[in-house]
Amino acid sequence: MIAITLPDGTVKEFAKGSTPMDVANSISAGLARNVISAKFNDTVVESVTPLNENGNLILYTWNDKEGKKAFWHSTSHIVAQALEERYPGIKLTIGPAIDNGFYYDVDFGEHTFSEKDFPEIEKRALEIARGKHDFKLHAVSKADALSLYKEQGNEFKVELIENLEDGTITFCDHDTFTDLCRGGHIPNTGIVKAIKILNVAGAYWRGDENKPQLTRVYGISFPKQKELTEYLEMLEEAKKRDHRKLGKELELFTFSQKVGQGLPLWLPKGAALRERLEHFLKKAQKKAGYEMVVTPHIGSKELYVTSGHYEKYGADSFQPIRTPKENEEFLLKPMNCPHHCEIYNARPFSYRELPKRYAEFGTVYRYEQSGELHGLTRVRGFTQDDAHIFCTPEQLDQEFKNVIDLSLYVLGSLGFDNFTAQVSIRDLDTPEKYIGSVDNWEKAENAIINAATEKGLDFVIEKGEAAFYGPKLDFMVKDALGRQWQLGTIQVDYNLPERFDLTYKGSDNELHRPVMIHRAPFGSMERFIALLLEHTGGNFPLWLIPEQAIVLPVSEKHEIYAEKVLSSLENNEIRAQIDARSETVGKKIREAEMNKIPFMLIVGENEEEANTISVRRHGGEDLGSISIKKFTDLVATEINSTLKSFVN
Amino acid sequence: MIAITLPDGTVKEFAKGSTPMDVANSISAGLARNVISAKFNDTVVESVTPLNENGNLILYTWNDKEGKKAFWHSTSHIVAQALEERYPGIKLTIGPAIDNGFYYDVDFGEHTFSEKDFPEIEKRALEIARGKHDFKLHAVSKADALSLYKEQGNEFKVELIENLEDGTITFCDHDTFTDLCRGGHIPNTGIVKAIKILNVAGAYWRGDENKPQLTRVYGISFPKQKELTEYLEMLEEAKKRDHRKLGKELELFTFSQKVGQGLPLWLPKGAALRERLEHFLKKAQKKAGYEMVVTPHIGSKELYVTSGHYEKYGADSFQPIRTPKENEEFLLKPMNCPHHCEIYNARPFSYRELPKRYAEFGTVYRYEQSGELHGLTRVRGFTQDDAHIFCTPEQLDQEFKNVIDLSLYVLGSLGFDNFTAQVSIRDLDTPEKYIGSVDNWEKAENAIINAATEKGLDFVIEKGEAAFYGPKLDFMVKDALGRQWQLGTIQVDYNLPERFDLTYKGSDNELHRPVMIHRAPFGSMERFIALLLEHTGGNFPLWLIPEQAIVLPVSEKHEIYAEKVLSSLENNEIRAQIDARSETVGKKIREAEMNKIPFMLIVGENEEEANTISVRRHGGEDLGSISIKKFTDLVATEINSTLKSFVN
Repeated sequence: MIAITLPDGTVKEFAKGSTPMDVANSISAGLARNVISAKFNDTVVESVTPLNENGNLILYTWNDKEGKKAFWHSTSHIVAQALEERYPGIKLTIGPAIDNGFYYDVDFGEHTFSEKDFPEIEKRALEIARGKHDFKLHAVSKADALSLYKEQGNEFKVELIENLEDGTITFCDHDTFTDLCRGGHIPNTGIVKAIKILNVAGAYWRGDENKPQLTRVYGISFPKQKELTEYLEMLEEAKKRDHRKLGKELELFTFSQKVGQGLPLWLPKGAALRERLEHFLKKAQKKAGYEMVVTPHIGSKELYVTSGHYEKYGADSFQPIRTPKENEEFLLKPMNCPHHCEIYNARPFSYRELPKRYAEFGTVYRYEQSGELHGLTRVRGFTQDDAHIFCTPEQLDQEFKNVIDLSLYVLGSLGFDNFTAQVSIRDLDTPEKYIGSVDNWEKAENAIINAATEKGLDFVIEKGEAAFYGPKLDFMVKDALGRQWQLGTIQVDYNLPERFDLTYKGSDNELHRPVMIHRAPFGSMERFIALLLEHTGGNFPLWLIPEQAIVLPVSEKHEIYAEKVLSSLENNEIRAQIDARSETVGKKIREAEMNKIPFMLIVGENEEEANTISVRRHGGEDLGSISIKKFTDLVATEINSTLKSFVN
Repeated sequence: MIAITLPDGTVKEFAKGSTPMDVANSISAGLARNVISAKFNDTVVESVTPLNENGNLILYTWNDKEGKKAFWHSTSHIVAQALEERYPGIKLTIGPAIDNGFYYDVDFGEHTFSEKDFPEIEKRALEIARGKHDFKLHAVSKADALSLYKEQGNEFKVELIENLEDGTITFCDHDTFTDLCRGGHIPNTGIVKAIKILNVAGAYWRGDENKPQLTRVYGISFPKQKELTEYLEMLEEAKKRDHRKLGKELELFTFSQKVGQGLPLWLPKGAALRERLEHFLKKAQKKAGYEMVVTPHIGSKELYVTSGHYEKYGADSFQPIRTPKENEEFLLKPMNCPHHCEIYNARPFSYRELPKRYAEFGTVYRYEQSGELHGLTRVRGFTQDDAHIFCTPEQLDQEFKNVIDLSLYVLGSLGFDNFTAQVSIRDLDTPEKYIGSVDNWEKAENAIINAATEKGLDFVIEKGEAAFYGPKLDFMVKDALGRQWQLGTIQVDYNLPERFDLTYKGSDNELHRPVMIHRAPFGSMERFIALLLEHTGGNFPLWLIPEQAIVLPVSEKHEIYAEKVLSSLENNEIRAQIDARSETVGKKIREAEMNKIPFMLIVGENEEEANTISVRRHGGEDLGSISIKKFTDLVATEINSTLKSFVN
């Protein structure tokens, strides 16, 4: 008999060789129907893997990330079978699950495989799935494995196997198909009810541009057809909301090959948007006791040697900037913290003056390979809404809570109501990996967990995920399409205060080390605006949107009245323009809709006589003919309902 | 007889060999008394140089820059004589006039010369001056000149002479002293009535650190003792107002050796000051139709090859930033214009959409040798209040006027009431030096001159001082100490629109080249703030100063009332703090005075009872016990008197 410990702590006895499915069955038939994968003693196993020792077992269903992974990876086997049948002689390489679905990298040889071929493969793959074939994992000797793939002439699998140790090699079979595979499958193909090939792209073998180019076949699958339909609708919507597309349409930002890849140029409307976001945060930060500072975008190499960044990242970064006549070298700043440490060091502090909270919208530069750049989410230069808090260890608790308050205020004001948090703490088994006293680490971890609990955050604790310099809390938000993004971060740091020899004079008149908190509620202006664009589809909160209203005179003779309306709006700090082109009102409305302008104010004969405006909302709602005062009140009310003042 | 043309166009006949002094005498005895130097046919001559041909003559007095130059250069001869008498065997090298006085670079050999020796030299120099010795310039053959200095063992003069052509070498004698000199002296030593040695510093021979180090003796002289006294008082005041000293005292900025020389770190009060200045200009710019943009601080090398900056400045600049894996190179941006050209290029424009006015507080980086760095006035990274206007040639006139309006508004709001302008135009004799059509140059030069005239600017026109890409207008301001500084600049540019192939569609439906205007009313935030600090001695205009008021509770029991006062001030947007330390009010007042806080608000028993504050102005004026409302009104009135709204 073996003792199986379940996640809730229950221990059950089973015959040696029982499978996770047996365990599921012992709990409930419903669970057994849904179990598709498992983890035993921290190793991914199949639901039918015999368990031969005592251990901890986690059962996964479709609702778990690990369950989806098994589901999608298994589907890659099914699709590979369909491809191999249809295109004999192709060479399969690897087919892992990814965040959304799976891919299989294939050398199609003389064959071509493109979008028009997808339906046929999808159809055949679904047929195979319906056959309810079990996935069967079995060990193979290295010699046998090699001989199989050498016979097939598949040099890719041969290379993979050559790098494996004999005794660890397994194959997975289902139906007539077999593949080198280390495991992580669903019980049988039958639970896959919907399969979609999403697209194909080129991919180098092992990501190395000197190696052969393969075709990466991307796909996804679901246990219900309805879920696939919803997913495809979501993809369609996501395409419309792609921040690169919207950014261009709304004239927010652009890129220039001459300026350089990954270096956004902010156009007037985008720059104004950024400024409003910055102003919003600055105002809240001022209330929360932050002080703005300004530091240069370069620093001497020495600065980053002191901070440790040079040793750690120097070789993979933008390279040092030499000077013509002197022996000085500078680096583009990859982060603002060393500069802020030097600001702290500019004069001595007493404990009575702490915390000092230095904030800066600091633009930093980090080298990314050109292939990894993506719109505003992966760039080479970006502006962090950065701040560093220097406090005594005793103040850490309260400071952390304050930062959470500020972060929640930021997310709330921008319509992100759906977020979770991750607290990353030490791995107690490897204390040598961390800098700072055990006592301080305990204080800091407790401070974070208490703060997260007290603030009612929905959070998970990840052991061993802390940085070497301190524990942290990250905010994850879900956007309108249910996609998860990591945004703001709050990190405790014991390292830089050491390296920069930061001190304060305590009440005991002795010098002490302050603790440092790094924090950025937006993360970066670039990434945040990208995310906000995709979350809102460009329909930003009214307080933030570049143009809140557009005045549409019905004809030229109403232009003077339109000017009067505009001037009233401007006096009420409503951002608006007049569309005075000699186009029909219909066309002007269509364009205003496309430009996501929340309110269209139509002015003609009737309006001018009655001293009113006819208000149409973005999307079509007709608010009728109302006075300008009523309209400005309406705008003010709507803004005040989302944008509250920050209360510290 | 020769014909002499005077600056007012008068032509007079004189005997050949007449001197500028003869000409002066023929005009008036008063003029003759004051003439100290002259320029004949664009060459500096002595007042006693015989004129042997027809030509244009300008007579200079102490009131002219050229006159002062001759005066100070002549004094350097006198001081050199005094030094040579006192320290036999020293080697004289060169002794030019500079903006304020003169210097003489001397190899003192075994002697030392320091501050304690100044009075003795000043006394002897003045004695020599009183001897009323004529300065007599006479030609010397190269052989004789060389043999004289070889005999003296003065290798410096020998080197100078070796680089001169025989037939062009002159010596200047006065009293017992003779010196290699090309001329530009006053008639005789007698008009020098006050001489001061200011300081000594090390200087390499010919500015080359591989050559011998000499002692640079700085001095100044005046035609009246009173002028020297005033000048020394001004220097004393300037020392107190040194922006580096004030910047430290007022906690505005700091430098860190680790971050790097010439890279200012803006402390909270300084960053807030910058932000207020930026906000002030942004507001005016918005009214003037500018749009803000944001661009990165680096650009690909290609960008600067296109703009021409790389070829021109590349070797002397911060060197290219290489990347780890790709063949890309980037440069720190030395100016924002190439980036703004690429923003303009992001989409096509019609003439109806012009002008486009792109503004950015753009931080740029330019390499300066460490020895040339100076506080905030000579730095390696600075933020320009930059903008580029893209307009049609027809719009240039109006745009230029608008920019002058904005520049005058900026200077006026900041208390610079005393400024002049310099218009730099082409040299018509060298048309090959300039890019752009003659027609456009004429238009642009006329536009600038008309605009400057119409706006009532006190300006000079400098021929041949235009940049190769276009004419320009620079603003020179005088600070409170009478020192002149170059601040804002407005430049027309025909070059970058060519190089970046900028176009707009004209009313003829053809593509045309826009004209570009570069402009920066502040110049740079760093230099402007430095200048403002020295101009105001830290007593910034009330609207700008970091802390407008400080509340001083007489004792702890008035702290609650002090908080109430503070909160009223904050509601009225007055920047204030409470000094709640347990110090005497006297000490708090002294510190507030030192910190240049305009208003000290003392609150004690009486004030709390009467619900008032006792207001003391910086400097000591007692405004008595007044209501908070009266005080906030007073502040508002004072602010409104200097800071008007910009009217476009």
